[in-house]
Amino acid sequence: MEGRPNLAPEPSDSIYFQAGRLHIIDQTLLPVETVTLALATPEEVVDAIRRLAVRGAPAIGIAGAYGALLAALSAGDDAPAIEAETRRAIRLIGESRPTARNLFWALEKMSGALEAAPRQAALMLAELRSAADSVALEVIQTDLALVKAGLLVMGEKVSVLTHCNSGPLAALRYGTALGVFIEAHRRGKDVHVWVDETRPLLQGARLTAWELGREGVPYTLICDDMAAQVMKEGRIDLVMTGADRIAANGDSANKIGTYGLAVLAHAHGIPFYIAAPGSTVDLDCAAEADIVIEERDPEEVRRFAGRQTAPEAAPVYNPAFDVTPARLLDGIVTDRGVLRPPYSESLKVFAD
Amino acid sequence: MEGRPNLAPEPSDSIYFQAGRLHIIDQTLLPVETVTLALATPEEVVDAIRRLAVRGAPAIGIAGAYGALLAALSAGDDAPAIEAETRRAIRLIGESRPTARNLFWALEKMSGALEAAPRQAALMLAELRSAADSVALEVIQTDLALVKAGLLVMGEKVSVLTHCNSGPLAALRYGTALGVFIEAHRRGKDVHVWVDETRPLLQGARLTAWELGREGVPYTLICDDMAAQVMKEGRIDLVMTGADRIAANGDSANKIGTYGLAVLAHAHGIPFYIAAPGSTVDLDCAAEADIVIEERDPEEVRRFAGRQTAPEAAPVYNPAFDVTPARLLDGIVTDRGVLRPPYSESLKVFAD
Repeated sequence: MEGRPNLAPEPSDSIYFQAGRLHIIDQTLLPVETVTLALATPEEVVDAIRRLAVRGAPAIGIAGAYGALLAALSAGDDAPAIEAETRRAIRLIGESRPTARNLFWALEKMSGALEAAPRQAALMLAELRSAADSVALEVIQTDLALVKAGLLVMGEKVSVLTHCNSGPLAALRYGTALGVFIEAHRRGKDVHVWVDETRPLLQGARLTAWELGREGVPYTLICDDMAAQVMKEGRIDLVMTGADRIAANGDSANKIGTYGLAVLAHAHGIPFYIAAPGSTVDLDCAAEADIVIEERDPEEVRRFAGRQTAPEAAPVYNPAFDVTPARLLDGIVTDRGVLRPPYSESLKVFAD
Repeated sequence: MEGRPNLAPEPSDSIYFQAGRLHIIDQTLLPVETVTLALATPEEVVDAIRRLAVRGAPAIGIAGAYGALLAALSAGDDAPAIEAETRRAIRLIGESRPTARNLFWALEKMSGALEAAPRQAALMLAELRSAADSVALEVIQTDLALVKAGLLVMGEKVSVLTHCNSGPLAALRYGTALGVFIEAHRRGKDVHVWVDETRPLLQGARLTAWELGREGVPYTLICDDMAAQVMKEGRIDLVMTGADRIAANGDSANKIGTYGLAVLAHAHGIPFYIAAPGSTVDLDCAAEADIVIEERDPEEVRRFAGRQTAPEAAPVYNPAFDVTPARLLDGIVTDRGVLRPPYSESLKVFAD
């Protein structure tokens, strides 16, 4: 974490643009296989986002920005074609997943660059490349600032619980909540992470456990329905997760299961924090009621990795996210510090 | 549910003794395959209990009783050999799983029959057979009474949430909590059951969904981390689960995840009930602190339906049960009616 953040790929980066291709680690294959995909078209980016080969709100934003760039690069040296292809890609990518704010933030940056660029092919491509890079750089920079802020709520010896994955995989290099735990460990704090496996797609078991293992951070994996018991046993000092969208009043959407953890933490007197950069904050969204929650394929619940675990055609409810009301948050860790209630005031730091 | 309960096997019974063998549906293969095993020795019974081919507190009790009978039957016509073999089997079976009260209750019945029988081989075998049958009959009878009592807390239109499996598979014929829902449906009530999948071994997805589908009861399957969201949406009127051991003060052990549901139900103002027959009540156990919680193989958590889902050798915590404190229970549905707080008084109905 020393020095200025830069965009030169680092060995552990989960996303990077190189030789005209967007490279991502295929998160669906972890932890059994580590495969890097080289995406060449916006359609391939949409497919990767939809099937969660790339996931995590900041990472989706970065992938979306470079997906628009791939469209522009495919249009040759014709300015109107570049414009048309880029707009088409922005629309297409914008429909890939509805809940995470960061994707729309990134696509707005690409739209802005497209509008601002002179109508000359080379300049348009340069502007779009610069805009996509700046989305990635901003994720790196804001996560770095967020991680430093997060250290303020981590004691010297701290046992934390988290849900889903909010590490480097979800955000290119540092991550959000998981980034805080990793940095605390690097700085010598005695950190233990309790990892919810996070059904249905097991991002905790597959991704968070893998990232913590890679970094040497002590952790224990549990099933989601064990979290309450671990809390009751007095083994959790703090719960922290990422977020996909934060409304103006502080209501925060994150992976399904987060809301339940917040209720359980509250009942056990355990502080509960969300960690997310400013690009997750949506001041146009007043509160929970304005947040669209994606429902995903019932087969995600009926099967795992091709194995049937429920009767064929069993009726299923599969919301991908839930919303934790602001009243259950002890704080929101951001790149502008740890925000405290009332969030309708403290979140105004992002009104620019 | 008409007429007197009897031990003649019914087509849907999950356990029955016939032709010198204990027949059980192998619950590990459901819902993909329906295979009936014919167990011939107490060792086979222990193995079936350990690997959860037979599970559910009442079903384990029945299997344990017949396991002791299998030992007696293998000892030929020598009274001392019958006694020795039966005692050995009772010890062996008693060590198979530590938490469910019903197993110890059933084995105590077999011990009592062994002590009371005259020292003649034929009489001993007859007494032991009768004792095992009476364990099974008592489960059928008490579940029938429990199911009728449970109807008292079910409105005409009711949406319930349950965890794990407490249906006929767990208890030979009627079941406990799930038995109440099935009977309410048969009597024309408008019942909808929300089914927690119940990690790590997915008894909800595999067994409860299968049993509800077989009976035509409307249900929706969810992952465990979705329960809080469904509660928040106002879609749950009542939560009811089975139990594995109930202490004298009402503290109740059940499948891991039950305690968390009770906390969530409380936070959402939703009534929470345990349903279990008197054989689950352990008045020698004062409170939660006296209940031994089984920890199971970490591989159950590292894998999902046989597929690796976490890093090899990921550190895991895998408690099979948790304890819901009496203060979170709105009532305990039993074969002696719906008990209400203070449970240290109302549970005395089982002090005989």
